Amino acid sequence: MGFGTVGAGVVRTLAEHAGLLESRLGARVVLRRIADLDLDTDRGVVVDRSLMTTDARALIEDPAVDIVVELIGGTGIARDLVTRALEQGKPVVTANKALLAHHGRDLFDLAARKKVDLYFGASVGGGIPIIRALREGLVANRIQGIRGILNGTCNYILTRMEQEGATFKAALGAAQKAGYAEADPGLDIDGHDTAHKAVILASLAFGFMMPLEAVHVEGIRGLSDADIAYARDLGYRIKLLAVIKGDETGVEVRVHPALVPLGNVLSSVNGVFNAVMVQSDPAGNTLYYGRGAGRDPTASTVAGDIADVARNLVAGSPCRVPALSLVQSAPKPRPMADIETRYYLRMLLLDKPGVFARIASILGGQGISIASVLQKEGGEGRHVPVVIMTHQAREGRLNAALDDIVASDVISGRPVRIRVEE
Amino acid sequence: MGFGTVGAGVVRTLAEHAGLLESRLGARVVLRRIADLDLDTDRGVVVDRSLMTTDARALIEDPAVDIVVELIGGTGIARDLVTRALEQGKPVVTANKALLAHHGRDLFDLAARKKVDLYFGASVGGGIPIIRALREGLVANRIQGIRGILNGTCNYILTRMEQEGATFKAALGAAQKAGYAEADPGLDIDGHDTAHKAVILASLAFGFMMPLEAVHVEGIRGLSDADIAYARDLGYRIKLLAVIKGDETGVEVRVHPALVPLGNVLSSVNGVFNAVMVQSDPAGNTLYYGRGAGRDPTASTVAGDIADVARNLVAGSPCRVPALSLVQSAPKPRPMADIETRYYLRMLLLDKPGVFARIASILGGQGISIASVLQKEGGEGRHVPVVIMTHQAREGRLNAALDDIVASDVISGRPVRIRVEE
Repeated sequence: MGFGTVGAGVVRTLAEHAGLLESRLGARVVLRRIADLDLDTDRGVVVDRSLMTTDARALIEDPAVDIVVELIGGTGIARDLVTRALEQGKPVVTANKALLAHHGRDLFDLAARKKVDLYFGASVGGGIPIIRALREGLVANRIQGIRGILNGTCNYILTRMEQEGATFKAALGAAQKAGYAEADPGLDIDGHDTAHKAVILASLAFGFMMPLEAVHVEGIRGLSDADIAYARDLGYRIKLLAVIKGDETGVEVRVHPALVPLGNVLSSVNGVFNAVMVQSDPAGNTLYYGRGAGRDPTASTVAGDIADVARNLVAGSPCRVPALSLVQSAPKPRPMADIETRYYLRMLLLDKPGVFARIASILGGQGISIASVLQKEGGEGRHVPVVIMTHQAREGRLNAALDDIVASDVISGRPVRIRVEE
Repeated sequence: MGFGTVGAGVVRTLAEHAGLLESRLGARVVLRRIADLDLDTDRGVVVDRSLMTTDARALIEDPAVDIVVELIGGTGIARDLVTRALEQGKPVVTANKALLAHHGRDLFDLAARKKVDLYFGASVGGGIPIIRALREGLVANRIQGIRGILNGTCNYILTRMEQEGATFKAALGAAQKAGYAEADPGLDIDGHDTAHKAVILASLAFGFMMPLEAVHVEGIRGLSDADIAYARDLGYRIKLLAVIKGDETGVEVRVHPALVPLGNVLSSVNGVFNAVMVQSDPAGNTLYYGRGAGRDPTASTVAGDIADVARNLVAGSPCRVPALSLVQSAPKPRPMADIETRYYLRMLLLDKPGVFARIASILGGQGISIASVLQKEGGEGRHVPVVIMTHQAREGRLNAALDDIVASDVISGRPVRIRVEE
């Protein structure tokens, strides 16, 4: 259901690798039907016209269809159709992160109640088998933290800003020209797409349904090339990260630009590539890297899920791996004010004696200590840019300090604050 | 079976994460018995003494034992015991790469005939779920190539040589002192451990049993710090790589030091970490990174395999994923003389007019063209070191050219040849 770019990729993969898949599965995967409102556009793959229908419900109800693949996207008709398929006991494979982030609880419940498979490997990380790694490879691990570059559009923009000194606007334009960003790029650059994926990863990692509303989301729209340059001087690259951390009691999920040290493998993930670093016991740090979007990488994971469901059909083992395994007592989302991290702060300060002492004293009053300071020659009259790296501090206290700084008469404008992830 | 370092890690993981595992599996994993010849050494984990036995056969025959875990290592007693367990229809989890590289064909056949699970995730890459990614995540992919840093000891030595300018001998000493290298380090530094792992990856990727004898193996023992420095000047790092490439007709598997460009993610894998880059259609390049050895990372993967077998027992789906899916017509191992790659050559040449033309002409005579030349000031009398980077060339022709060069009167000693992997 949904014969767009990814749908066409799945059709191609199933056709071109049919023999390979059959030898690996011991079963043949046959394309029975394709449902889409548009039956005419050429998708670059050969499909028997008689397989195509505009009636997705008829597809679901067709007794010849054993596995339903949802590649429509969004939370409207896709939700109805996935629900309907699960209710009828048909296994579903979907790549729809928005659907799971918004309605995962209902859908996972329904799949468990009906004892039917719901696979969603391609909802996070495109061609990177990260969902499988979390649910199966690391099944014996206690997950401690996940840090992911999950949006290729943002990473492409940030890479161009860093490598070419481009402004955000120019880099966004380049991404649009290269086909990596939509005409309306908000879902990507404002961090929502990353937040959808973070909700799915957090839910799998900690065994509860992380509410999307509890995710702190900042995008890269406001990011200045000056901060990228300062970060580089300090030995960091700025990446849009999903940060997931926690334990049995509380889990924080946040999406925001972050300074990543140059020595960290995540900092060398460039262009449209995605990567996910998982910190867990006993595996330690493991990292998964690849193309996070696009026709073929996404098709790889959708086809892998189809293969999994097919194996379960052949072996008579539906729900062998539950869509979401819940822990007995769900952890609570951790309020943003309670998170602790290091901060990069940039502010325009009045260039006169005692001003920096005033800032240090406001920070110190909140128990925040300064790790390093970078003061460049000023070019804006009586104000000079000052960059401060703090030690570990609590977000709530930092917010209070920033309020005090803004209320003082020594700063021009608002301070820039970017979190640091080591 | 085998209560050494990894065995102790598995015991700890199963004990500390028992509740977590139970909630994820819907089944409890219980440690029934431990077999080892040494019942006395303290392994740092608490075990009921009554579970321990020196009689591994009794463990296999115990009707209370549903899953046999082999962590003895080697190809002697481990082979007998794994064979015995499979013959009795007991699923086996093993981390034993030497066993599978030498006797995989028999064991995979036996497991298939007896319809019993044989899992071996921890045989390659320690805590990195690379076997799972190949067998399941990328199941719909045609694998085109795999390049892996699969031995932490070698990577630690190479990292120290590069970062500190240390000689091989000094770096090996440091690795031994840090506990990363055995007193007899041959299995690691001569490339055999990497070759065992490469055989397993190649077999999974191409659906046949790659013969260990057909793997070209060179270790890092002869590597000079001069070559590491030259490589760096040219924009490369030297890594011990397993290179697996091929298609339906032929597969090459080789283990040797290789120049990896600094821009390639593999070049930034440092210290004891391992990484595997898989090139496949349709996923494109995906990379898997983590700790490739050690008690806890290996235990993570062994416990993940135990969980998989447990799921199959609960769901009644043994051999849901066959240990090795064979393709109909097995590809042939490709002879080393037929491989094509770029080469780094270093030689001490007589410092007199016409000598370089002579070398270029010998190479040209074999159809090998030169991409770049680096000639440093000589310090050895009448001979100067010359570094040549070639374009893509066939190994057999390069060997012929090197023979001609050695037979000439313009070179002192033998040329150094290191392959390049882009």
